[in-house]
Amino acid sequence: MSLLVVGSVALDSVETPFGSREEALGGSAVYFSHAACLLHPVQAVGVVGSDFPVGPLERLAKRGVDISGIERKSGESFRWKGKYSYDLQNRDTIATALGVFADFDPKLPDPFRNAAYVFLGNIDPELQLSVLAQVKQPELVACDTMNYWIHGKRDVLLELLRQIDVLVVNDAEARELSGDWNVYRAARWILERGPRIAVIKQGVYGAVLVEQGRIFYVPGYPLEEVFDPTGAGDSFAGGFMGHLARTQDTSSANLRRAMVYGSAMGSFAVERFSTERFDEIGVAEVTERVREFAELVRFDIEPEAGNKP
Amino acid sequence: MSLLVVGSVALDSVETPFGSREEALGGSAVYFSHAACLLHPVQAVGVVGSDFPVGPLERLAKRGVDISGIERKSGESFRWKGKYSYDLQNRDTIATALGVFADFDPKLPDPFRNAAYVFLGNIDPELQLSVLAQVKQPELVACDTMNYWIHGKRDVLLELLRQIDVLVVNDAEARELSGDWNVYRAARWILERGPRIAVIKQGVYGAVLVEQGRIFYVPGYPLEEVFDPTGAGDSFAGGFMGHLARTQDTSSANLRRAMVYGSAMGSFAVERFSTERFDEIGVAEVTERVREFAELVRFDIEPEAGNKP
Repeated sequence: MSLLVVGSVALDSVETPFGSREEALGGSAVYFSHAACLLHPVQAVGVVGSDFPVGPLERLAKRGVDISGIERKSGESFRWKGKYSYDLQNRDTIATALGVFADFDPKLPDPFRNAAYVFLGNIDPELQLSVLAQVKQPELVACDTMNYWIHGKRDVLLELLRQIDVLVVNDAEARELSGDWNVYRAARWILERGPRIAVIKQGVYGAVLVEQGRIFYVPGYPLEEVFDPTGAGDSFAGGFMGHLARTQDTSSANLRRAMVYGSAMGSFAVERFSTERFDEIGVAEVTERVREFAELVRFDIEPEAGNKP
Repeated sequence: MSLLVVGSVALDSVETPFGSREEALGGSAVYFSHAACLLHPVQAVGVVGSDFPVGPLERLAKRGVDISGIERKSGESFRWKGKYSYDLQNRDTIATALGVFADFDPKLPDPFRNAAYVFLGNIDPELQLSVLAQVKQPELVACDTMNYWIHGKRDVLLELLRQIDVLVVNDAEARELSGDWNVYRAARWILERGPRIAVIKQGVYGAVLVEQGRIFYVPGYPLEEVFDPTGAGDSFAGGFMGHLARTQDTSSANLRRAMVYGSAMGSFAVERFSTERFDEIGVAEVTERVREFAELVRFDIEPEAGNKP
């Protein structure tokens, strides 16, 4: 079953304590696709300017990403420039130039309209609704957003929530959206507004999945070296949705596995600049990391706690 | 096998967004004992002033804590007053009055010198060394510390590290101590200086146990209501050490279980003011919460990842 992503395709200039990259491949649709395509073919929808390099998109296509939904328009590509603090926990945006992304009006190629699994990356919620209207009968729709839309287009966002299955946000966004600092109460607030699943990412600490009456926690992968946190959240979403699309199973047990694939992909994303790490790995590395997650949290309840006969 | 704790016994005045308590029972030895005694008898060493109320100590004794090592000295008891931020993530110390704690010189009653499991709560590392010298042949020694000693008595602390098995600190302390912001590198730094185990607490996010070549992560328990974070770390240590003492097993598998008991006790501590929650629960509630932790992180690797035949 097909997996669709809509989001930004950007040229990121990033400075971290470990070095810098100028105009490297970035954007939510790009990170999502890089991660997800390790598990399942991806249909990507986005827009680039006439100055966008051909090579990176062609490499994405070779990896199983259908880029026929990435429109090339006359004008400049979306560029973002940021600088991270010494501990990578904070970043300053130095420059944002939206370029052709400012007038992004996503149009799905006909074959994309049959998508079963849909991820609406962080763009204007009006555009997210427009994409959703173009998809015929999705199995599962997940969505990201950010503080800018939470404050600027709250009503549209609330309408969107009524139409999606999974909201994937970070803890700060969940707090802003719900007005509650406690992430578990914030998750409950989200579940009361449409989605049946809330996924709240907590950076290096991992992520939590909240369904009605069920909570699952996956830690962040213990990395001693992190080079560039950019795109970790979208890579998480790519792993999460990629696993669901390839298994065609949205049971609770499989949602848990999807969370682990998400956390694994998030950890790969930050090990190199831009999407470089994804160029080095295949499904074997992903599988191995998922195994390590199982070991990371594994414990047996002792006999007196009732786990053994 | 006996379990010994040395630390502060205090009267805490705490203000949170949900209310306040004046001169409630507090201190590292008190929180540790309240948590640990749910699992195993405890021998507590500390000092109180002539003004310390008798009732709370007697209640502790009734719960299986040998308080014969808590000396009553002429003078005022240790008092601490603090106020938490709206989200409980930060606190300001409003007042500290050390009283008789300023001249604390821990003397172990003879029977305490046979202790097998020892927890050195956060006090002057010279006193921690002095306690250690009084214990004949401990099986396992764990130790806490804080930024004040990391900066003020670094050499003594490094000497102490050479003599202990487990360092239990929070992430900020691990970073200060090692000079490294990455907690996993910080843990490795600690392991290179004596302890064979580093336990790094990460507040609401849980805690990580690092041994040579092995890492275990336990999340924080998903609480929608937190009343008073005071003592969570010492309660964690109480659960961790209480489980080890009662099982007399320091294998890796059992250290993992001990981490879960630690996180469970930390979560109980914050559900009420002071140590109030521990007065309401027994081993059944602890066991049930440990079970919930198992469910919180449980996932099965799918067949293609090699977990199934």
